[in-house]
Amino acid sequence: MASREYEAVLKLLLEAVKAANNSRNAATDEIPVGISNRHVHLSQADLDTLFGAGYQLTPIKDLSQPGQFACSETVTICGPKGAIEKVRVLGPVRSKSQIEILAGDGFKLGVKAPAKLSGDLAGTPGITIVGPKGTVNTQEGVIVAQRHIHMTPQDAAQYGVHDGQIVQIRVEGPRGGVYGNVAIRATDTSALECHIDTEEANAMGVGSSATIKIIK
Amino acid sequence: MASREYEAVLKLLLEAVKAANNSRNAATDEIPVGISNRHVHLSQADLDTLFGAGYQLTPIKDLSQPGQFACSETVTICGPKGAIEKVRVLGPVRSKSQIEILAGDGFKLGVKAPAKLSGDLAGTPGITIVGPKGTVNTQEGVIVAQRHIHMTPQDAAQYGVHDGQIVQIRVEGPRGGVYGNVAIRATDTSALECHIDTEEANAMGVGSSATIKIIK
Repeated sequence: MASREYEAVLKLLLEAVKAANNSRNAATDEIPVGISNRHVHLSQADLDTLFGAGYQLTPIKDLSQPGQFACSETVTICGPKGAIEKVRVLGPVRSKSQIEILAGDGFKLGVKAPAKLSGDLAGTPGITIVGPKGTVNTQEGVIVAQRHIHMTPQDAAQYGVHDGQIVQIRVEGPRGGVYGNVAIRATDTSALECHIDTEEANAMGVGSSATIKIIK
Repeated sequence: MASREYEAVLKLLLEAVKAANNSRNAATDEIPVGISNRHVHLSQADLDTLFGAGYQLTPIKDLSQPGQFACSETVTICGPKGAIEKVRVLGPVRSKSQIEILAGDGFKLGVKAPAKLSGDLAGTPGITIVGPKGTVNTQEGVIVAQRHIHMTPQDAAQYGVHDGQIVQIRVEGPRGGVYGNVAIRATDTSALECHIDTEEANAMGVGSSATIKIIK
């Protein structure tokens, strides 16, 4: 075959594999799990205060959601009862800083963080963030991330759910069970993934290669 | 009334209150929750090595299960990847030492602990325990406590379950859900209580005054 013919065959094969994968997912309804540890998102103003004027984040690893990345930078977060060091900064910068902790961290820090979706910061408590060049006392932004599933509107249609819907998820395995109050977040730029935090993962024995199923 | 009559009336009142409580529990099926953090039970031989020959534990707080108590003593537990300090010792001493960790501790320590019921230690990994007077390298005994419900055989009859049965439990509230694989442990000396660990409590927003319901 000529090189152009090889190319055409490979393209067909790639599409066949993609189609097979999609039909497998549709058949089993399995959704991959992403496990989040505590982390912070920073505004440019707070980044400037913590790391120096005009500072640029240093990406070290792409996350599953397109455009999101883990950074080499870490900060210390301090509440009235305690501090937690080496909290990872995620990029890119956001319009407002947001501090996502575990429920257990809340006891250690002495901060009563509600379970909220990313960006829903009204009425949330603040915290002190310490970086190598300065300190920020945020007035709000501390949350425990509400369990949620990222997907595209096309995924949502396939699973029979819609953006903003609250579902339950089933975890299989010897420590499995069902988590309630899981939010569907459907946007065009999402990658299909169910996000839970490390306490939620540990409590049901969920590893990084686990999958869950939606229960409506 | 004569004093004997008062006594008789008070006895009737007490029985009426007890009956009302029982019927309330039976009507709602609510079971109180006890939340366990990491802890160790020690054999007398290991206690001797860690704290000195003939050492006696110092009780500081009775636990809900009759005869069980928290002690002022703490130890450090060390695995191939890390150590955890100030791990509480629970009494009384047992025939074998048993180290109950959180799943998250397993990652920190580098120890792969299975979810097992207390006392079911065959095939479990060991760990190094360090006390003020010495160190013990246990050959087994590290577990993540399997979720379980303590009750008397009378409680079991009331809830329609039996010793050794595996049930699910429902947790209400904004972060609630259902935990599977919860073992019924019915003995004559048990106090009614569902035991989960701090990660399991945090993952579903369970506080110390929470209750759960059995789902069969």
